[in-house]
Amino acid sequence: MDIKQKIEEANKESVHRLISGLPVLVDIAPALEVIPGFKDKMIIHSGPPVEWNQMCGAQKGSTIGAVIFEGWAQTFDEAQAMLDKGDIRLEPNHHHQAVGPMAGTISPSMPVWVVENKAFGNRAYCRQVEPKQQFGDFSEDAIKGLQLWRDVWAPTLRQALLGMDGLELAPIITKALQMGDELHNRHTASSSLFANEMAKGMVAAELPKKETMMTLGYVTGHNLIFLGIAMAAGKAIADAAHGIEYSTIVTAMARNGTKFGIRLSGLGDEWFTAPAPVIDGVYLPGFAASDAGLDMGDSAISETVGWGGFVIGGAPGILSLVGGTPEEAIAYSREMKNITTTTHPVYRMPALGSIGTSMGIDIRKVVDTNITPIIDTAIAHKDPGFPIIGAGLVRAPLECFKSALIAFSKKYN
Amino acid sequence: MDIKQKIEEANKESVHRLISGLPVLVDIAPALEVIPGFKDKMIIHSGPPVEWNQMCGAQKGSTIGAVIFEGWAQTFDEAQAMLDKGDIRLEPNHHHQAVGPMAGTISPSMPVWVVENKAFGNRAYCRQVEPKQQFGDFSEDAIKGLQLWRDVWAPTLRQALLGMDGLELAPIITKALQMGDELHNRHTASSSLFANEMAKGMVAAELPKKETMMTLGYVTGHNLIFLGIAMAAGKAIADAAHGIEYSTIVTAMARNGTKFGIRLSGLGDEWFTAPAPVIDGVYLPGFAASDAGLDMGDSAISETVGWGGFVIGGAPGILSLVGGTPEEAIAYSREMKNITTTTHPVYRMPALGSIGTSMGIDIRKVVDTNITPIIDTAIAHKDPGFPIIGAGLVRAPLECFKSALIAFSKKYN
Repeated sequence: MDIKQKIEEANKESVHRLISGLPVLVDIAPALEVIPGFKDKMIIHSGPPVEWNQMCGAQKGSTIGAVIFEGWAQTFDEAQAMLDKGDIRLEPNHHHQAVGPMAGTISPSMPVWVVENKAFGNRAYCRQVEPKQQFGDFSEDAIKGLQLWRDVWAPTLRQALLGMDGLELAPIITKALQMGDELHNRHTASSSLFANEMAKGMVAAELPKKETMMTLGYVTGHNLIFLGIAMAAGKAIADAAHGIEYSTIVTAMARNGTKFGIRLSGLGDEWFTAPAPVIDGVYLPGFAASDAGLDMGDSAISETVGWGGFVIGGAPGILSLVGGTPEEAIAYSREMKNITTTTHPVYRMPALGSIGTSMGIDIRKVVDTNITPIIDTAIAHKDPGFPIIGAGLVRAPLECFKSALIAFSKKYN
Repeated sequence: MDIKQKIEEANKESVHRLISGLPVLVDIAPALEVIPGFKDKMIIHSGPPVEWNQMCGAQKGSTIGAVIFEGWAQTFDEAQAMLDKGDIRLEPNHHHQAVGPMAGTISPSMPVWVVENKAFGNRAYCRQVEPKQQFGDFSEDAIKGLQLWRDVWAPTLRQALLGMDGLELAPIITKALQMGDELHNRHTASSSLFANEMAKGMVAAELPKKETMMTLGYVTGHNLIFLGIAMAAGKAIADAAHGIEYSTIVTAMARNGTKFGIRLSGLGDEWFTAPAPVIDGVYLPGFAASDAGLDMGDSAISETVGWGGFVIGGAPGILSLVGGTPEEAIAYSREMKNITTTTHPVYRMPALGSIGTSMGIDIRKVVDTNITPIIDTAIAHKDPGFPIIGAGLVRAPLECFKSALIAFSKKYN
């Protein structure tokens, strides 16, 4: 076989694995209990590796929030002092089979969604999605949301889930794609379907009324609750397609607010990075582009497995949030066919005549066409201390794909 | 004021009322208990008035099913004999502030959705939607579904609902239109959102676990459960716009499988009918166009208030059921602007750039343009004894609108 054939074979295997992923939510448990390599006094974060003093404002704020949440410090200054001294170990989520939204900070006592890819046996983890601390807000109110998650919502959902023998996610994902979700920033349908399933689980588990009511109120009122689950599912699906020699398929796209990084199936643990791009955004009242931080979060795992911007043509409801017209959204979804390898047989877009979602970003096609993945994403403030300020569209930087291709040529040639 | 001005003023009032409708689900109770003018040994049915011996096969089968369900007869032959003798009083749903899906049969002990239009104080009623008896199936299995509704599901939902002080439907309708429902044959989103609200109500009411689990299983598994509620909401909205002198706005479209009838706001209780049309359908395995009955059901109340075919452009997920392309569906929704009076300020279609839904069918515009309302609908068998056999698209017959216009000219000169 010549190299081209080897690449074709490898990519075939990668996309076969991407398509065959069978994500099942199996647990909701404290990070320290379940995430491989997790330690006390550790916080893991979104994107490629970054030192504390290099972090962007929002990721700093979010890290400080996590330190206060864990009770390691009581104030911003105390937390900052600990981080300055290097008392807290910081590592990327992706180095721990995990992903996190926006700043993506996960600390030891934070319950995480545990998703197993039943087709391949690997697991992945993601934290709760909320509109404050993950964006850099470390206020009392932001910490309160994490506490309720840890003390009430997550344990209640966990008890329900364990009685259900897990929850298959493919049926929810399939249905949600037919209901106007793009499974990145619009999770209205998936969250509602998830709440339907958990309501049955909670009643079946005969949990105390107060906790059940609080948790039902939380899940039925949180139209992004499924985002964390979908991200863990995306990571579990992508990880199974990783590590195929000669494969030019992208298995991670992640940003930390300073750098955008990608990983390639055939190039192991290496990150190929470029400066995090500016988002073309729509802002919440009181905020403007001049307040915005750069692109941030592991949530681009959604696009890595063919959701988010790749299926935005089927999710016109999101356009009031991120901007643009239904026709432009459909054009984005069509455009992504040019840089991907196949389409999913089950995940389909009715708005595009029920064609399958585009799967398997091939760096060769990205570099050949100059078409980069389109990502729809939320926006954090450039400074620490703020909740979400907007949302918009962004392109993965071409540079990442070019450096990956150069590294690929070096390794395999 | 000349007649033209009088019509404009009247239509303005009609569509104002259509737009201002505020449907709230207030009860789920046996028909005899709540529907005005209901009597024992009475069955009310869909469409304009029709005698027993003139009924189409499916409506006959459904009526026989209702007679057996009520225990008035044990077998098909016994039930038929009673109906032949005129022992059962048959009247249209629309003469009782009610609507019913397909054959639309409502019998005394059948619990119905009770929707109050809080803006105007009027109430409307609709029966449970299921895939068998309403289509003409009178088998033991079909009757069993009605019994479970009467004995378990409806009473459990009723107890939950009464503890909730009613359920506002506008927020569910608004959201569902952004989630790919057209609120006639696709109710996937509205049903899921409804199930979440009722789950909270059931837990809050501390109902027995067994009944709660059975009912939660039913509502979360029934992706058309909201259709009956939406139909009652549509009827409650349309009735408030009825009875405005000089108004040329349509306030009912209904079919009984032999005739298609419309009512006009300015023409009182009169029906303007034409033969029920043939549906352009997609059939379930084992069935074909030659098996199909003609257009049937009060469910065109959906289109009367601007849902169903009028918003199908935002519901591409339904096309696998009724046929056609996303582009055709969008064209239908755009076309309906030509025969309507205004757009709804809150009910919007993201797939069409978030324009409001078309409201207020004006018979003058229909006759002027020769464009008739597009309806997406299920298909029943031409003979009694079958469950659902397909779904498709159909146009309201132009003839109804022409005769209404002639009658209007006669009355108002």
